[in-house]
Amino acid sequence: MAQNIYDNPDFFAGYSRLPRQVQGLDGAPEWPAIRALLPDVAGRRVADLGCGFGWAARWFRRQGAASVLGLDLSRKMIDRARADTDDAAIDYRIADLEQLDLPGAAFDLVYSALAFHYVQDFARLIRSIHAALVPGGDLVFTIEHPIFMAAAHPHWLRDEDGRQTWPVNGYSIEGERRTDWFAKGVLKYHRTLVTTVNTLLGAGFRLRRIEEFAPTPEQVAAMPELAEERERPMMLLVAAQSA
Amino acid sequence: MAQNIYDNPDFFAGYSRLPRQVQGLDGAPEWPAIRALLPDVAGRRVADLGCGFGWAARWFRRQGAASVLGLDLSRKMIDRARADTDDAAIDYRIADLEQLDLPGAAFDLVYSALAFHYVQDFARLIRSIHAALVPGGDLVFTIEHPIFMAAAHPHWLRDEDGRQTWPVNGYSIEGERRTDWFAKGVLKYHRTLVTTVNTLLGAGFRLRRIEEFAPTPEQVAAMPELAEERERPMMLLVAAQSA
Repeated sequence: MAQNIYDNPDFFAGYSRLPRQVQGLDGAPEWPAIRALLPDVAGRRVADLGCGFGWAARWFRRQGAASVLGLDLSRKMIDRARADTDDAAIDYRIADLEQLDLPGAAFDLVYSALAFHYVQDFARLIRSIHAALVPGGDLVFTIEHPIFMAAAHPHWLRDEDGRQTWPVNGYSIEGERRTDWFAKGVLKYHRTLVTTVNTLLGAGFRLRRIEEFAPTPEQVAAMPELAEERERPMMLLVAAQSA
Repeated sequence: MAQNIYDNPDFFAGYSRLPRQVQGLDGAPEWPAIRALLPDVAGRRVADLGCGFGWAARWFRRQGAASVLGLDLSRKMIDRARADTDDAAIDYRIADLEQLDLPGAAFDLVYSALAFHYVQDFARLIRSIHAALVPGGDLVFTIEHPIFMAAAHPHWLRDEDGRQTWPVNGYSIEGERRTDWFAKGVLKYHRTLVTTVNTLLGAGFRLRRIEEFAPTPEQVAAMPELAEERERPMMLLVAAQSA
């Protein structure tokens, strides 16, 4: 089973104060880039894997989705998500993506934001999603970028010109990475970019588009601390379609 | 027009002594990974863009290719390639990939090794290749990996454990990169990985598979100096098919 760090009180307290948890989707600078990858969801059945507080689930419903199933490993997350909605077409459940078990051909879109890098068996996860999608169904997800995650000591350095520089090592060596992020020893799984892409292709997905989030000049002007995100990609955004 | 560094005498002298130029394809550690991406070429018409001394062109013919067109910007390269073959089914020509102009639907496979990162207008190049391929035709190419190419000062560092570490900065800022490699100021063009992939998808290619070359344990045992290539990918290998 995946590490359930989100129910750790220290982690949960810190995580809950992130702009994207307080302000919702508009607090995430990559949200406009994700939106551009999403298909029209009007009348569609959506599953959100790692739904957290349910910000995206509620957004899908506002866009006209017929139903949204939101899954999360964290009881605290699901409790809060349930408390924040009275929409009968949204169903929140506790579930471990490591053992994802969805009904077959029951969804038009599977969406996931920053959850899959906590899952060890990515190939199993992607096969399960493919089976849960109707033919032609969409998978749109974001993960931490392997450039961001690979190094043993992932933190900013300065190059000889004083420029913010990100270290990469161990890139081809996949597997566990532990970082301290609101709690000690948060467990993630590093996979190369080609493993992510080839796993999708091998499971019967067609790649529609990928993005490496970098802030726009307007975003940097509004939030100067985003400038460093232009130096190395922190997130990979993927849009694929069941072939 | 692309910078013609290969006809610079200093560059040419150094480059000609690389193992992959002396020993041919087997001197390139990524060659087994490229071979695994190549379709069967028996009876097929192949174009090799940036053919150099013609090692791959001759290999395609040994595999039964009906014909090979080898293009290179460097007169020295083409002269040597012509001198090294008397095969009438191989046609070597001087050409600038920046102005690639091939007959329409005339090739079953377009192949290129470590040449496209010298080309500024990648979208034009890919559209030209798509037009030159028959429907269902293959494009297999390698480029320097954007992780390898992005930084202003691309050279090994040591992290706090003394581990070989590669710097990344300016990743999202595409365009010219100048390095000293056998000659001063060799001009290359950095593109993000997603630009490379999305340009292919946008031009009508389907992505078949991608690889980030990393040496196998057997290769590292035989050539210990390859070990650092496991720390960060130096090359991206792409297999796409005209959709």
